[in-house]
Amino acid sequence: MLRFVHLRGPASRATLAESLGLNRSTIMALTADLTAAGLVREELPRRPGRRAGRPSLVVRPESTRVYVLAFDAGVDRLAVARVGLGGEILDRRETTRSPGDPDGAELVNVLAGAARSLVRKAGRDAVCVGAALAFPGVVRRADHQIMFGPNLDVGDVPLGESLSRRLGLGVPVAVCNDADLGALAEHERGAGVGCDDLIYLHGDVGVGGGIIVGGRLLGGQEGFGGEIGHMMVNPNGRPCACGARGCLETEVGERTLLAHAGRAERPGETGRDAVRAVVDAADRGDIVAREALHRVGNWLGFGVANLVNIFNPGMVVFGGTLRDIYLGSAAQVRSVLASSALAAPRERVKLRTSALGDDVTLVGAAEYAFAEVLADPLQVLARLREPAAT
Amino acid sequence: MLRFVHLRGPASRATLAESLGLNRSTIMALTADLTAAGLVREELPRRPGRRAGRPSLVVRPESTRVYVLAFDAGVDRLAVARVGLGGEILDRRETTRSPGDPDGAELVNVLAGAARSLVRKAGRDAVCVGAALAFPGVVRRADHQIMFGPNLDVGDVPLGESLSRRLGLGVPVAVCNDADLGALAEHERGAGVGCDDLIYLHGDVGVGGGIIVGGRLLGGQEGFGGEIGHMMVNPNGRPCACGARGCLETEVGERTLLAHAGRAERPGETGRDAVRAVVDAADRGDIVAREALHRVGNWLGFGVANLVNIFNPGMVVFGGTLRDIYLGSAAQVRSVLASSALAAPRERVKLRTSALGDDVTLVGAAEYAFAEVLADPLQVLARLREPAAT
Repeated sequence: MLRFVHLRGPASRATLAESLGLNRSTIMALTADLTAAGLVREELPRRPGRRAGRPSLVVRPESTRVYVLAFDAGVDRLAVARVGLGGEILDRRETTRSPGDPDGAELVNVLAGAARSLVRKAGRDAVCVGAALAFPGVVRRADHQIMFGPNLDVGDVPLGESLSRRLGLGVPVAVCNDADLGALAEHERGAGVGCDDLIYLHGDVGVGGGIIVGGRLLGGQEGFGGEIGHMMVNPNGRPCACGARGCLETEVGERTLLAHAGRAERPGETGRDAVRAVVDAADRGDIVAREALHRVGNWLGFGVANLVNIFNPGMVVFGGTLRDIYLGSAAQVRSVLASSALAAPRERVKLRTSALGDDVTLVGAAEYAFAEVLADPLQVLARLREPAAT
Repeated sequence: MLRFVHLRGPASRATLAESLGLNRSTIMALTADLTAAGLVREELPRRPGRRAGRPSLVVRPESTRVYVLAFDAGVDRLAVARVGLGGEILDRRETTRSPGDPDGAELVNVLAGAARSLVRKAGRDAVCVGAALAFPGVVRRADHQIMFGPNLDVGDVPLGESLSRRLGLGVPVAVCNDADLGALAEHERGAGVGCDDLIYLHGDVGVGGGIIVGGRLLGGQEGFGGEIGHMMVNPNGRPCACGARGCLETEVGERTLLAHAGRAERPGETGRDAVRAVVDAADRGDIVAREALHRVGNWLGFGVANLVNIFNPGMVVFGGTLRDIYLGSAAQVRSVLASSALAAPRERVKLRTSALGDDVTLVGAAEYAFAEVLADPLQVLARLREPAAT
């Protein structure tokens, strides 16, 4: 029930009973427990229903008091948000990052400092129930250890543990692959709501992938699954930071786009803004920019065709810088898809851009952080309140 | 409980109670129900246990009385087997098939005829509880319709319905992708028992894939998932029957291997035997055969590397003709994998050959056919016996 109001918003007792297939006395009992725990509150509907008689009380998540901290360690941007139960971003801090910026310890400093200022502003009766960090690299699920992340070098610093210690809130900070979190976000709150077989492609210097199979995030044996950016598409392609050659990441990533467009060396033009500048230039008729997008769109099309054949997804979602790259090369992507993917899985697949824009990984981190409390709300809260009571 | 004795073989009541976490009185009640339905019988252990006291009765599947029909429509071989509860192949018919052989109607004729002779031999008290057919093509899950199968042209004949009608046993015949069934078979009874993230690659003229994610077969939106054979690995490669170019199937399939080995046109040398002949020749030092396997192994390595990066599987299993091709090119496959896959997912992946050999798709068809009866044994049996009682 808490998951329902978290994802779908406030709902009347009657709606909850119907949607969850529970009878009204069960709903009342559950609501009483969750209210006592401070997770939801009940109130009269703001707009009375049409039905005669006593209006059904509306169950509303305690979105300002119960929150998580969502961290996004992008290559060119660091962000922290305080996200309330129900998914609303209540407050945030954001700072740009230059590729030359130093290491993991400094990263933890910046993120922890920003988070602490958000926590202070939250007030004394607010409770942080979880935290997660989106990271552009390969992360082991069991211990959130970063195995590979050439685009954001953090050295040996254990990001999750360091951050958690610096926050001092008694919650661990889960470190997750950014594209996995993007997939989660688009599946639960974005373009892919209702689509249980979805592939999310995320661009942030590198190219990451998050894959939802049958409603669940594909992790594989150790959580490394979804590294679509390192699918080889061009055996004669560019060398990749992973040691291989012609990975999707090297053929469609922003560095390659900027190089094709003759903009690799323009100072100050990096990241999202630089990619948008190429797409804008192409829109205005710039031949070089158009050709650059055409070349990148060609390989992106092959990559998408492979994914369509392998996964038969209902939807492929492009996010991060790939959102703009796809928008600038959609015709080419669709043309390669039409000639390279099998008809059967191709016919019904939808290609979409991220509905959550630049916040997609941040929203995903928040959803990940909420997962445990949604699975067992009363226990998690009891555990968090214990130290305060002693 | 029925699933346990089906997959693991006869087990004592004590073992069942412990393995399934049920108490002995529940085991007794379940056994009584299943015995009454004719699905299992209890008997004294053949080899008495070491423990003193009354030996625990052994629950044994009624493997000769309760069976399924498993069909395998290979490109060069047709096979039908009667497979008993517990997984034993009780009886079988097999015939070779030439590429020039005619269409779907004739295929149904041959398969139905063979199946009927198996059913006659089974005796009057035996009951057929399901049937499935392994087919080398893209099959829609919802209605078992073949969407694409250039390697075995059956025209417009609805294989499943036609076979079912000709059998007249009151069971539908599920048509499934052969590699999906191979994955199921290796996961439940072959090299991949206990590995819940597994990729099965099947060679039979074409190349198919079956993917187990988190213990479940990956189907995707409509069941077309797993078409690994149509993953593009070589943008400058050979044209594929699917309309694309450089698919894994065209770069590592048996036709390409035979062409590289200068054996494409040798009469009588086709299919599994022809592939084995190339591998044998390479083993004896034939330079042309070695070079052919090296070239094919190179692309197979890229394909496996992509799958390792995308899925982080615990195991990749090579079956059908790819079993021999892998055995003949393992060094090359492993070398490309080492240079092309990310270290994290590569380090623990096992590369294995099919443990079920030429029967892998047949065993998979049997497991698929048993799935419904294992999920709800009493209801399925009741439904099957109804028409006989009236």
